[in-house]
Amino acid sequence: MPQTRLDLDRIHAARRVVDPMFLDTPLYPCDALGRQLGCTVSVKLETANPVRSFKARGTELVTSLLVEQGRTAVVCASAGNLGQALSWSGLRRGLDVAVVASKRAPATKLDRIRALGAELELVDGDIEVARARAADIARQRGIRLLEDSLDVETCEGAATIGLELAGAGPAFDAVLVALGGGAMASGVGHVLKTVAPGVEVICVQPAGAPAMTRSWHERRVVTTDSLDTIADGVAGRFPIPEVLDDLLAVTDDAVLVRESSIIEGMRLLLEHTGLVVEPSAALGVAAVLEDRERFAGRHVVTIVCGGNVDLDAYHRWVRP
Amino acid sequence: MPQTRLDLDRIHAARRVVDPMFLDTPLYPCDALGRQLGCTVSVKLETANPVRSFKARGTELVTSLLVEQGRTAVVCASAGNLGQALSWSGLRRGLDVAVVASKRAPATKLDRIRALGAELELVDGDIEVARARAADIARQRGIRLLEDSLDVETCEGAATIGLELAGAGPAFDAVLVALGGGAMASGVGHVLKTVAPGVEVICVQPAGAPAMTRSWHERRVVTTDSLDTIADGVAGRFPIPEVLDDLLAVTDDAVLVRESSIIEGMRLLLEHTGLVVEPSAALGVAAVLEDRERFAGRHVVTIVCGGNVDLDAYHRWVRP
Repeated sequence: MPQTRLDLDRIHAARRVVDPMFLDTPLYPCDALGRQLGCTVSVKLETANPVRSFKARGTELVTSLLVEQGRTAVVCASAGNLGQALSWSGLRRGLDVAVVASKRAPATKLDRIRALGAELELVDGDIEVARARAADIARQRGIRLLEDSLDVETCEGAATIGLELAGAGPAFDAVLVALGGGAMASGVGHVLKTVAPGVEVICVQPAGAPAMTRSWHERRVVTTDSLDTIADGVAGRFPIPEVLDDLLAVTDDAVLVRESSIIEGMRLLLEHTGLVVEPSAALGVAAVLEDRERFAGRHVVTIVCGGNVDLDAYHRWVRP
Repeated sequence: MPQTRLDLDRIHAARRVVDPMFLDTPLYPCDALGRQLGCTVSVKLETANPVRSFKARGTELVTSLLVEQGRTAVVCASAGNLGQALSWSGLRRGLDVAVVASKRAPATKLDRIRALGAELELVDGDIEVARARAADIARQRGIRLLEDSLDVETCEGAATIGLELAGAGPAFDAVLVALGGGAMASGVGHVLKTVAPGVEVICVQPAGAPAMTRSWHERRVVTTDSLDTIADGVAGRFPIPEVLDDLLAVTDDAVLVRESSIIEGMRLLLEHTGLVVEPSAALGVAAVLEDRERFAGRHVVTIVCGGNVDLDAYHRWVRP
């Protein structure tokens, strides 16, 4: 049993709290993509839901607990997907939801947060500036600050993906998980290392936002000064020590990929699965593209974790 | 209880035969699309599986029965999706699968049938020419001819979609079903008219391939001489009398939509759901676009039934 902050019983219990719309998402082989990549590829699809990312698995859990505790408001910093999911889950449960995001976040993510009815504050800076501002708001208002990856519910919500992978019939050899703050990787890793320890759990991060991956390899927190990636959903500079510890306990590797590989990954997903995905969701395919030998002939699952992307930017990158 | 060739008990039993990968597909509201259309829109997504259409629900059932009967081969005519699904289901069960398709079918559909390992014969003509040729092959070889919509398993397989819609929590007012041969519409209609008769079941067909819709309104088979639509998946000229009878018993309306509406439907699905779909899958959205008043304020489910589309053609139509 791996030693992390997560708990398998709580993860099982989470399934009873999360709206079924976000659970038991499609998991299916994509032969055409596999042929391109030289391995068997299955897609775990987290975009076919009202918020188009996996994040609601965590926000459903958090907001249920807040309601149980009699809380009435919550604030988070977000690159866009967490904010959307928190808005969806929170407003449905009668909570006031405030989201702090970067002015540079994709317009589609910001528009959807507003459309859901949350309070949205934009900061002039990146996600780390937004995190600081959200913490200020929480202090000033005396409301709950939801911190992605640090708050164990975000990890345990995402970990329900791991339960679904572990419960799937056909065995697979490796799972590729987009790595940002670490909630999804620690969640999926915790479950798989507990119930299917033979499956390799590989975190994938853009080379332009490498802080957590560097930290993983150095086994200590390494921060960076700047971000340079189109994968806005996983771009952070200040890894959280508790999350790093969890990742070290339940993941087998952390790799960095180039922007060109992320774009090629998006293009391949479009061509072979008909899915328009955001850059973060193409990290797994990018990792296979950069190390075909490692995956040759193996059965790999890639979690397609988000589909919120500005179409203009998408078409600029993918160029149909 | 509506009088059709379909049987609710058999439809329930089908769920035990069909690979779970094709069942319990996502059903979720898409607020952004709903705002554009002036109603509440939920998507029933049938493209997130290995063959990217709903057709495997039927072919799983048919091929299981063939194996039980000790049959070793099967042939079908197909616009592309049925052939792909039959190849997937049949080859997995050790059956020889032959598919007859039009030379003009989308290259991606033909490529995938070949890649799955089926025998593919192309004819110089449309789906009706392919149907005649498939019947010849079946006679010559003494093998089972699978006839879409006529063979009740294709309808009862598709009808499992109806079970999932009926079992979904939030009530809805209408379901929009792409109409080609009629398997999906009769299947979904049979279940809904049996267990949720208040839900309006509306068939949608392209004005360029109107044979079944005209037949529905005239309550007798009307054939046409030619086809003129990009929605290849639903393009037929010779409605099957038995299927027409079923449709008359379990559907509330059949409407025709213009090509421009189908294209706008594809564009809206891309923009608001991130799904690249084939034209047939946009028929439901097209129907709302052409009659906003009818659907204003109502909760509409549209079945996104297929995603096999040549990307070049798609981009020519949708023009990002």
